[in-house]
Amino acid sequence: MKTENSTLRLEAFSDGVFAIAITLLIIEIKVPSHEDLKNQTLFQYIGHQWPKYFAYVLSFINIGIYWANHHYLFKFFKNTNHVFNLLNVFFLMAIAFLPYPAGILGEYIMEPEHTRTAVAFYAFAMCLPAMGYFMIWIYAINNKSIINIKLSSRFIKSLTLQYAISNLLYIVAFIISFFSAIASITLSVALTLVYLLPSKKPEYFE
Amino acid sequence: MKTENSTLRLEAFSDGVFAIAITLLIIEIKVPSHEDLKNQTLFQYIGHQWPKYFAYVLSFINIGIYWANHHYLFKFFKNTNHVFNLLNVFFLMAIAFLPYPAGILGEYIMEPEHTRTAVAFYAFAMCLPAMGYFMIWIYAINNKSIINIKLSSRFIKSLTLQYAISNLLYIVAFIISFFSAIASITLSVALTLVYLLPSKKPEYFE
Amino acid sequence: MKTENSTLRLEAFSDGVFAIAITLLIIEIKVPSHEDLKNQTLFQYIGHQWPKYFAYVLSFINIGIYWANHHYLFKFFKNTNHVFNLLNVFFLMAIAFLPYPAGILGEYIMEPEHTRTAVAFYAFAMCLPAMGYFMIWIYAINNKSIINIKLSSRFIKSLTLQYAISNLLYIVAFIISFFSAIASITLSVALTLVYLLPSKKPEYFE
Amino acid sequence: MKTENSTLRLEAFSDGVFAIAITLLIIEIKVPSHEDLKNQTLFQYIGHQWPKYFAYVLSFINIGIYWANHHYLFKFFKNTNHVFNLLNVFFLMAIAFLPYPAGILGEYIMEPEHTRTAVAFYAFAMCLPAMGYFMIWIYAINNKSIINIKLSSRFIKSLTLQYAISNLLYIVAFIISFFSAIASITLSVALTLVYLLPSKKPEYFE
Repeated sequence: MKTENSTLRLEAFSDGVFAIAITLLIIEIKVPSHEDLKNQTLFQYIGHQWPKYFAYVLSFINIGIYWANHHYLFKFFKNTNHVFNLLNVFFLMAIAFLPYPAGILGEYIMEPEHTRTAVAFYAFAMCLPAMGYFMIWIYAINNKSIINIKLSSRFIKSLTLQYAISNLLYIVAFIISFFSAIASITLSVALTLVYLLPSKKPEYFE
Repeated sequence: MKTENSTLRLEAFSDGVFAIAITLLIIEIKVPSHEDLKNQTLFQYIGHQWPKYFAYVLSFINIGIYWANHHYLFKFFKNTNHVFNLLNVFFLMAIAFLPYPAGILGEYIMEPEHTRTAVAFYAFAMCLPAMGYFMIWIYAINNKSIINIKLSSRFIKSLTLQYAISNLLYIVAFIISFFSAIASITLSVALTLVYLLPSKKPEYFE
Repeated sequence: MKTENSTLRLEAFSDGVFAIAITLLIIEIKVPSHEDLKNQTLFQYIGHQWPKYFAYVLSFINIGIYWANHHYLFKFFKNTNHVFNLLNVFFLMAIAFLPYPAGILGEYIMEPEHTRTAVAFYAFAMCLPAMGYFMIWIYAINNKSIINIKLSSRFIKSLTLQYAISNLLYIVAFIISFFSAIASITLSVALTLVYLLPSKKPEYFE
Repeated sequence: MKTENSTLRLEAFSDGVFAIAITLLIIEIKVPSHEDLKNQTLFQYIGHQWPKYFAYVLSFINIGIYWANHHYLFKFFKNTNHVFNLLNVFFLMAIAFLPYPAGILGEYIMEPEHTRTAVAFYAFAMCLPAMGYFMIWIYAINNKSIINIKLSSRFIKSLTLQYAISNLLYIVAFIISFFSAIASITLSVALTLVYLLPSKKPEYFE
């Protein structure tokens, strides 16, 4: 019989969802209709789409970072179980949802009467995978059957703290958005840039 | 030569279809056009979309459950053959179809004159993968070349009964929809919640 | 170093394209707009979409069959090379193209002034992957580095004949479409049904 | 514990993005609405779409070539690291972006007032994955932990030169587009055809 409860197929499925969600981001950037080009040249249209390119790049990098982190975390996992699968499904549901708030951000961030809502919705949507990811980690460290090596408690504490802070910052970005859209989106971008830095994680074995 | 008739590539292909169908659900939730925002703010628009979020979450979880169950079942299968491949194709066709009834559910469940049809169509569409899944199981237990270990007859009976009841309940949800949309969708949600519970399956070996 | 020229990644990539093309078929069946429901109920609309369900099922099964056949053929291949990769890309290009003629078939097959064109275009589009598949096979049997076992010449002749006839029948379906749309689509459906039958292939080893 | 930093999951994820981006190209070719067929037959409509088929084929082949080259390059890589993952994400972001300029090319290349912009934007978009690919290679040859065998310096120089020239030619195609759209797109097509030729790479081992 095949290795039961191995994480292999779970990882393959997750990678599929990551890959599709990240690639679907582009369909929010529409080829202009002839109607769209009545009052502007194609060149102007392409230029005016910059908020969409910004939303595309920001969201692509964020999904890419989640993919890399998911990849990193699953190195430590050898088994899965029903609850763990479900937590992963909830996490993926939050990832697969991102093209929608990303589309709204790209469409409405530069329209003054909608900026705040667009930014707040995007910040809110960014909280969801952060929470899902955190729950996956918390569940895993409390279920010895999931983890495949003895992780040092220092490593566990370090990652837990890091993910908790990350969640907190996403929530802060969401709350800030009610007061200042520009501050909120700046924080979102800053968070993304921080995650692009190589992290100095402590050794995970004792 | 490569291992003939192994289920590996079938599983990979199925996972691909699961991953794409589940991720495509989001494209039924459209970024509003400027036209859409003439009589409401973006905030109101996002709020009014809640039936779509409901349809998204319900369908995402259902496809996720099917993925997990498919994964669970294929642990017992070591070979495939022509008919088995076809049954799997029919099952995947039913899975890949779901974004359409999910989109209709999200769009029309809250419009009184369309609620019943939207719910009935969704309930009908939910019967299809249940039937396909059941057929895969029935075919497999009657073809010894598919199954790779000796499953206990108690286990086989238990799973068969469980899948038969599941099919029956989906059909009931469909029939009920002609009398009460709210009862039908409640049953669909309840079924989904039941499948989220960890199942207490008997041991599968003798 | 990793196994060079192995077909593994080629198969994985092909499976990805198969899975996406097959799942994208559903996006040609659109959720009705409120405009669409002005002169008909949602129930009527869903019923009137039957040509689209027909096109969906026909195309889904055809892509599924190609996937299964591709799977079957690649059992015999152990290496790939530049030309072989290209032939596979051309084949996949034809597969990935299918959602477009399938969409046109579903939309226009029941509109008398467009039926013939819709059917002819679909029949034409079905010729392309058949040709691509045939070229993959012909190239493979003429390049010993691709095939990983000694296939019996009887088996090679049998498959070559079978694929040649298949190509011919697709071309016939295309040509017939200029005279009778109904005869052409009937032939396409019949071909699909034939491929659903388990084939009695001769032993492939000597 | 699983093999750390292996490139396997990176390759699988990349293949997913390649497969989705390449298959999404078809959604830029829309099934005509009844409105579209008011002044032309379906046959004429399908014929008039040829610039879209051209953009589809050109882009499909280009993404296919990138997939094959990525595949080729990753044979030499055994490990990944944070920066390497990021470079790959940037490369994939450029690949996943291609359906948008491909859609614009197909829609506007034959409309005189938009030709130049459509071609220039496509040429610009083609520079991005070329740059990303080049950066992956340059980073890899400067990080011994990435490469898994001792590549001959002659091979490294040869590939570096080849990729540098390739980048240069894409930039030239972009610059030319400001002067002559036809010359630019001709160069793009010629580059694609050149990459279809089997390359005569020197031996990579010493």
